[in-house]
Amino acid sequence: MRAADIIRNKREGRALQPAEIDYFVQGVTDGSFPDYQASALLMAIFLRGMTGEETAHLTDAMVRSGARMTYPDVPGVPVDKHSTGGVGDKASLILAPLAVACGAAVPMMSGRGLGHTGGTLDKLESIPGFVTSLSLGELRTAMANVRCALIGQTSDIAPADRRLYALRDVTATVESIPLISASIMSKKIAEGIGGLVLDVKTGAGAFMKTVEDSRRLAESLVTIGNASGVRTEALITAMDAPLGRAVGNANEVIESIETLKGKGPEDLETLSVELAARMLVLAGIAASETDGVAAARKALTSGSGLEAFKRIVENQHGNPRIVDDYSLLPSAPDRHSIPAPRAGYVHELRAEHIGRAAVALGAGRARLEDTVDHGVGIEIVAPVGTHVRHGDTILILHHRSGHGLHAALPLVNGAIAISDAAPAANSLILDTVRGGART
Amino acid sequence: MRAADIIRNKREGRALQPAEIDYFVQGVTDGSFPDYQASALLMAIFLRGMTGEETAHLTDAMVRSGARMTYPDVPGVPVDKHSTGGVGDKASLILAPLAVACGAAVPMMSGRGLGHTGGTLDKLESIPGFVTSLSLGELRTAMANVRCALIGQTSDIAPADRRLYALRDVTATVESIPLISASIMSKKIAEGIGGLVLDVKTGAGAFMKTVEDSRRLAESLVTIGNASGVRTEALITAMDAPLGRAVGNANEVIESIETLKGKGPEDLETLSVELAARMLVLAGIAASETDGVAAARKALTSGSGLEAFKRIVENQHGNPRIVDDYSLLPSAPDRHSIPAPRAGYVHELRAEHIGRAAVALGAGRARLEDTVDHGVGIEIVAPVGTHVRHGDTILILHHRSGHGLHAALPLVNGAIAISDAAPAANSLILDTVRGGART
Repeated sequence: MRAADIIRNKREGRALQPAEIDYFVQGVTDGSFPDYQASALLMAIFLRGMTGEETAHLTDAMVRSGARMTYPDVPGVPVDKHSTGGVGDKASLILAPLAVACGAAVPMMSGRGLGHTGGTLDKLESIPGFVTSLSLGELRTAMANVRCALIGQTSDIAPADRRLYALRDVTATVESIPLISASIMSKKIAEGIGGLVLDVKTGAGAFMKTVEDSRRLAESLVTIGNASGVRTEALITAMDAPLGRAVGNANEVIESIETLKGKGPEDLETLSVELAARMLVLAGIAASETDGVAAARKALTSGSGLEAFKRIVENQHGNPRIVDDYSLLPSAPDRHSIPAPRAGYVHELRAEHIGRAAVALGAGRARLEDTVDHGVGIEIVAPVGTHVRHGDTILILHHRSGHGLHAALPLVNGAIAISDAAPAANSLILDTVRGGART
Repeated sequence: MRAADIIRNKREGRALQPAEIDYFVQGVTDGSFPDYQASALLMAIFLRGMTGEETAHLTDAMVRSGARMTYPDVPGVPVDKHSTGGVGDKASLILAPLAVACGAAVPMMSGRGLGHTGGTLDKLESIPGFVTSLSLGELRTAMANVRCALIGQTSDIAPADRRLYALRDVTATVESIPLISASIMSKKIAEGIGGLVLDVKTGAGAFMKTVEDSRRLAESLVTIGNASGVRTEALITAMDAPLGRAVGNANEVIESIETLKGKGPEDLETLSVELAARMLVLAGIAASETDGVAAARKALTSGSGLEAFKRIVENQHGNPRIVDDYSLLPSAPDRHSIPAPRAGYVHELRAEHIGRAAVALGAGRARLEDTVDHGVGIEIVAPVGTHVRHGDTILILHHRSGHGLHAALPLVNGAIAISDAAPAANSLILDTVRGGART
């Protein structure tokens, strides 16, 4: 088999054979398929597409490029949730403890923020002492101890994906549904789960701008998951404005704890409970979504979700006292308020602009090697739908000695739209995508 | 400017800006545009295409990546001919001396054989002592001495093309009209010519299989040439069967000399004279094609073409006595005849099969690093249209101790088709493509 022939087949729009996909993925893993040929093939895949069978086989080959976890010491069906990335999306920090409190096992591998969307790992690392880089052995121990681990991708899991992702990033081949699907699902399948809930974000602040594109991605992901023995379903949710009131890292941790205390913003609480409920159904713990919602909500009101959060934090060497003392978390000292330019209703708070402003302040990375300031961020005082007077504060930027403020200000000012009429209330959950027949 | 943004623009089907093309070509030349990004861009160009303006600018940038020759000591307008590659195509060895004998200056840079088509350099190197690797200074001296040089591409000429061609070869991005056009024309323009005749081969033995594709390529090449100040025209010629009666290297040199002596096969003589005639017109030496044909034919019958050939050979350190003594050329000792499988007319001698068989015997390269046996080859005893009896010899393979015979035999047997009716006489020159208004 020759790499150039595989590239030619895809270039001509032909479906690749399983042996060709295996040759490619193995070669990417062991370095025998050079980058310059891999990138030509990635571009051909980007422009010619892949069938469902090809995408499923690509995913499977990427899973087989590394370890596939199991948790022999943990009873039940491990479940997880994955979001395609949003601004202010800290739902993982809430739903994982809620699901664990209800009896689920959650081995969650997350990523770092890149671009305007935040990353769960960065948020967790604002907790003093919290360790996200666990080995597979430590992951297994954590699962046995507290039925949950919130960690980063290890080099043992889907190594082909690491190399391909790095290449896609620099060759303009990221936004391809088959490549995104294989990348996400290979890591999730290798994690050793039996059920997965996907949160496919849609809208101006998301990777997928339209519900149609989001549905296509969701269908691709759900098909692959179910074909690989992972019961998978997807919610398509709105990502026009940030989720909740906090954008940053430490401030998002605080908002997550507040939500686990029953004092969070409604949109964030609703989404976290809905996603946790579906995880409970896929884990076989709840008989229906209604039962799942009731169980998750009870974990929230009873405080058992908060207790699970403390156990998870402590198990990963984080300081659990942050739950009661937010001053233990990093905080930027300086504030800059953004006033309403005129009276009216807050009609839009454009998530991408606000996400990029937070990155400018230091909350995220413009490049992978940048360091994150966990204390900076943006506080939403007047969310979409609020009536404001001229000069009322809409946003407060938490910055450190003005760092990044110059770049952030035009972004946040451009993020705000004020209207005379109250905006229509938009649904948060836009659609649900489930697989075909399930037993 | 970022490489990924340039790739993204082409991926989306947008025309690249001149500054983007310059960034790409300069980066390829100095190594700052990495191979893995260049190959993704090449695939995007392959699948999305390029406008005429983009292709012209790409060509120009590739010319500017190296030296552009001039010949201050040579009067008149230097002219050249380029063929897109065929089997048995030794026309360059005939038309260059004919044009020189008529007063033209011909600085001809050629390539080596790769795949089933032969290369002018390999043929020339079967002449004892002949040196094809001249520096630009030596090229200039050769032009001043004998108004002709038959040489290989130097590293000073279009260096970006070298790197891109190597990458295209391994990433299945060769067969792209904009990329082929820029590759051919950048080298020809940099050669320092004012007129160029292209021989775009078409048919089963050519790179372009249909007249329509050949015309598209010819139009692209002619447009670029004329836009760059090189008066360019193209003939579209048939390449179904090999040209002439000899396929190989030394045997093609012999056939070229025979043709210069007026004893060559008609198809080869006609094509060489027609191409030389057009070179003379573009050089301003002949007033019309009819005048050019008359001048070229006179150089052939008078022997002045043969004298020019001897001068060119001698000037490049080759032994000019080969013209009178073919035993000075390498020759394989062994013969294997291919008989007619039945009586009838030779209907087809498929050029690609015969070319591949010659490569198998050692006349060409399967890989760039292979060495060539200049003495082996294939002799066509019964060309297309000949009536043969069962068992009459159609081809004779000149081999060395059976080397490659095992692979060559099924190819040559598959190359031959015999029919009951005489095949229709096919035209050799199928079409002519000229640019727009010329002054």
